[in-house]
Amino acid sequence: MQIPQPYLLFLGDVRDPLAVKMARGILAWRPEACVGQLRLDAQTPDLGLDDLTVAEAAARGARTMVIGTANAGGKLPIQWLDSVREAVAHGMNVASGMHQRLGAVEDIAAAARGKGVELFDVRHVHPPLEVGNGARRPGKRVLSVGTDCSVGKMFTALALEAELKKRGIDADFRATGQSGIMIAGEGIAIDAVIADFISGAVEQLTPANDTDHWDVIEGQGSLLNPAYAGVSMGLIHGAQPDYLIMCHELGRPHMRHMSHFPVPDINACVELNLTCARVTNPAVRLAGFSVNTSSANEEEARTFLQELERRFGVPATDPVRFGIEKVASHLLALDAQGDR
Amino acid sequence: MQIPQPYLLFLGDVRDPLAVKMARGILAWRPEACVGQLRLDAQTPDLGLDDLTVAEAAARGARTMVIGTANAGGKLPIQWLDSVREAVAHGMNVASGMHQRLGAVEDIAAAARGKGVELFDVRHVHPPLEVGNGARRPGKRVLSVGTDCSVGKMFTALALEAELKKRGIDADFRATGQSGIMIAGEGIAIDAVIADFISGAVEQLTPANDTDHWDVIEGQGSLLNPAYAGVSMGLIHGAQPDYLIMCHELGRPHMRHMSHFPVPDINACVELNLTCARVTNPAVRLAGFSVNTSSANEEEARTFLQELERRFGVPATDPVRFGIEKVASHLLALDAQGDR
Repeated sequence: MQIPQPYLLFLGDVRDPLAVKMARGILAWRPEACVGQLRLDAQTPDLGLDDLTVAEAAARGARTMVIGTANAGGKLPIQWLDSVREAVAHGMNVASGMHQRLGAVEDIAAAARGKGVELFDVRHVHPPLEVGNGARRPGKRVLSVGTDCSVGKMFTALALEAELKKRGIDADFRATGQSGIMIAGEGIAIDAVIADFISGAVEQLTPANDTDHWDVIEGQGSLLNPAYAGVSMGLIHGAQPDYLIMCHELGRPHMRHMSHFPVPDINACVELNLTCARVTNPAVRLAGFSVNTSSANEEEARTFLQELERRFGVPATDPVRFGIEKVASHLLALDAQGDR
Repeated sequence: MQIPQPYLLFLGDVRDPLAVKMARGILAWRPEACVGQLRLDAQTPDLGLDDLTVAEAAARGARTMVIGTANAGGKLPIQWLDSVREAVAHGMNVASGMHQRLGAVEDIAAAARGKGVELFDVRHVHPPLEVGNGARRPGKRVLSVGTDCSVGKMFTALALEAELKKRGIDADFRATGQSGIMIAGEGIAIDAVIADFISGAVEQLTPANDTDHWDVIEGQGSLLNPAYAGVSMGLIHGAQPDYLIMCHELGRPHMRHMSHFPVPDINACVELNLTCARVTNPAVRLAGFSVNTSSANEEEARTFLQELERRFGVPATDPVRFGIEKVASHLLALDAQGDR
C-alpha cells in the first residue's frame, strides 16, 4: 500500500481542534505533500492552507483526498460522502482512517473501480500477513516505546527520522498507526491486525535492509497499559529493535482513560521493555528518553530530564522544546561503538 | 455463543492421527457430549466411537456436527461439504475450527438460515468486543501460562477444572482456543480477535462472578514466543489471574517451529509472567508447575519435578503421569490463607 501524494486535506465540518489532529500531523511533517484544505463549515479549524474545492485541488495536482479528521465512533458522516464522490469523480484516490470503510459504501466503491482510483481504509487494509518468525534481519532498527498511550511515540520517531536524514543518514520512518500511515503514505495499522499476526506484520513492515540503513519504527501503546499491551508486545518482538527510545509525559496523573491505573514507574517500564525486546534482539539498548514536558515550566522540565539522564546514563529531551539532536547523537555514538 | 451438545464428531478423510487431535480432546474431556464419529475413509483414525451416518446421529440426538480435524492451510476440503449440507438438512448445527468459514459457502449459509440452525466458525465468531479496561472483577481466577506453545496449557486447565469440580468447588473452564471452545461449547478464540481487543475479549470471557467461583482460564502461546507473545500478553492482562500455573515440556530442544530460538529459562519465564500479571492483579502468585514429561522415563521426570519444587517452593506435576491433585491442593491452600 502506497498512498499517492500530494494530498488534499479534507476537514469536513468538525469544530473540535483535536478532531483535526491527524491533518495537522500530516501538514507538520509533510508540508510539501499538502496542496490545500477542504472545509465544509466556516467554523471548522483552519490549518492555514488554501481552502480548495475538490476541482481546484485536482487542478493543482492533488492525487489523494485524505479524511484527516477523527470523530467519536469512527463512522463516516453522511454529509461527507458527497465530497468523497466528487474526489473520485475527479480521479483522486481517497484515504480514510475511520473505522467505517469507504469501500463499504457501494456506489463509492463502484465509482472508484470505474475511475481506476483507490480507496485507502488505512485501519483495515494491509498486505497478506504471516505469523512472526523472529529471525534476525539485516539493517538497523530503533523503536519508540512508552510508559503509556499518547506520550509522543509517533512524534519522536518522525523527529528522529528527520534528524537522521538531516545528517545524511539513510533512514525510513515506519508507520504503525493511522496518522503515521497518512504521513508516510504507507505502513500497517498494527492495532487493527488479527492478534496472531502482530509480530509478523511488523516483520513485514520493517524488512531486511542494507546494513547501514535505519528503520525508525513508530511504537504503539505500552507494555504496562492493560488495554493495549498485547499490541506493544507483538510490536517489540517483530521490530527486533537495536535501540529503544522511551517516551513519557511528565505529570500525567494516571494511565490515559484509566483513572484506576497510575502511570508506571519509568525504571520498571524500561526494564520490562528491554527484557521483552531481548527475545528477538539480545543486544538491544536504551538510547534515550523523549518526554512531553508541556505541563511543566522550562526549569521543571530541565530538572526532570537531567534526573533521568543521571539515573539512566542516556540523554533525555523534550523534542518539541529542546529538539531531538542529543538523542540522535547518542544513538549514532552507540552504534559507532561497532558490531555487537 | 453456545454450541449445542451432544456432538457428532466429523473426522472426514484425514489419515494423520495428529489431524484428529481436536476430536480426541473433545472425547477425552466431554465423553458424554459425543454420540458418535463420522469417517469418510476406512483409513481415517478410529476414536472408538460408533461410526454413524448423519441421519443416524440425528436420530440419536446429536445437535451439532463438529468438524474435529485440522488440515494444512485450514481450508474446507470440497469432499467434506456434502456432509455439512446433510447435517444442516437434518436440522443439526455445524461447528468448525477451520480458517475458511462455513458461513462463506453460500448454499450452506442459505440452507442453515432456512433450517434455523447455526454455523459456528469458532475461529471467527465472537461477541462484539470492547477494549480492555483492567478494572478488578469479583471471583477467583487461575490461568495456565507456558514456556512455549503446545506445552499443555489447555490440558492443564481442563484437568484443574475437573479436579476442582470433583472437590465440590464451583469452577468453569474458560476456553481461548478452538479445541477448548469445542470442548466447553463456548469461548473466544483469542488469537483470532483484532489486536486492539485482546485483553477486552478476555475480560468479557471471564466476567465478574461470585466471590467463591473459580474461572480456570486456558492460556495461549508464551510471553517469550516471538510469534505469539502479543496474544499471551493481552490474555494475562485481561485474565487478571490470582494464580498462575506454569506449563512446560521437558526436553524440548527449541521453541516450536523455531529452531533458532532455544526454550527460555523457566525462572525468567516465571518472573516475566508474574511481572506482567501484576499490572492488573498485584497479588498474583505462582501456584504450581504442569510439565509434559513424556520424553523422559519416570525417574527422570520425578527428578525434574522435584528440582522445580525445590527451586520455586510450589508443587510440580505431570498431570498425565501423576495427576493434577497436588497443584489443585496447593492452589486451594494458598487461597485459604485468606483475603490478600
